[in-house]
Amino acid sequence: MHKIVSKKLKLIKKNQGNIFPILKSSSNHFQGFGEVYISSIDYNVVRAWKRNKFSSQYFVVPVGSVKFVFLTDEKKKIFEEIIIGENNYSFINIPPNVWYGFANLSDNTSFIVNVLDKPYDPDESESLNPEDFPFAEYSW
Amino acid sequence: MHKIVSKKLKLIKKNQGNIFPILKSSSNHFQGFGEVYISSIDYNVVRAWKRNKFSSQYFVVPVGSVKFVFLTDEKKKIFEEIIIGENNYSFINIPPNVWYGFANLSDNTSFIVNVLDKPYDPDESESLNPEDFPFAEYSW
Repeated sequence: MHKIVSKKLKLIKKNQGNIFPILKSSSNHFQGFGEVYISSIDYNVVRAWKRNKFSSQYFVVPVGSVKFVFLTDEKKKIFEEIIIGENNYSFINIPPNVWYGFANLSDNTSFIVNVLDKPYDPDESESLNPEDFPFAEYSW
Repeated sequence: MHKIVSKKLKLIKKNQGNIFPILKSSSNHFQGFGEVYISSIDYNVVRAWKRNKFSSQYFVVPVGSVKFVFLTDEKKKIFEEIIIGENNYSFINIPPNVWYGFANLSDNTSFIVNVLDKPYDPDESESLNPEDFPFAEYSW
């Protein structure tokens, strides 16, 4: 059973713009810094399934709204769904070795910030198309 | 004379979304990880002047377009202007102790990702309104 942690982050509303805190090295949820990048995901798009063998990931969605789905128990076929975005500004922290996917819920492009504790390495990054996913069926 | 480094980053165009690389721990331009956050800046807004006494900053603009202005030489009153954004996807790396400001050039809200080599500390962060800026005049 994989443990997924998600908590609200305090969006700071300012005059004519906002501050979206993401991650500090002093945070309890900081696991090391390897890389930070952004993925954008267009209207009506699903990306699944993906897994990083060795790196932890930390997601926030400052623009739009995204549903993340995690296969937290492969044997019992338990999926966990978490929706985050500009109206529920929160992080999701996932340990290595968890299959996950995500779907854009916004009418526009959404933006996902991903902080990894190791630099991205194509050798540790797995992906499977939904039709080839052998562990359990999930209806997107 | 303060040295500002700015270089193109390779945006990876994908089907139905893109990958915006930001920073890796293995990059030549990585100076340590203290914090990452996003500032949004609305239409027609200028934010100036700011200075971090001790921390280096690393900016990218994945959404919109922003003009950054740096006072690179206080005695000679030299300003350096750099425009980055979704159509010129690049980073800007600034050392500590440089006065800077920025203006949104987009018709919509722009988003600035800021990676600092130390966690944000209000004690090291200075700001002055443009009318109180004693070093040199800049016409926004």
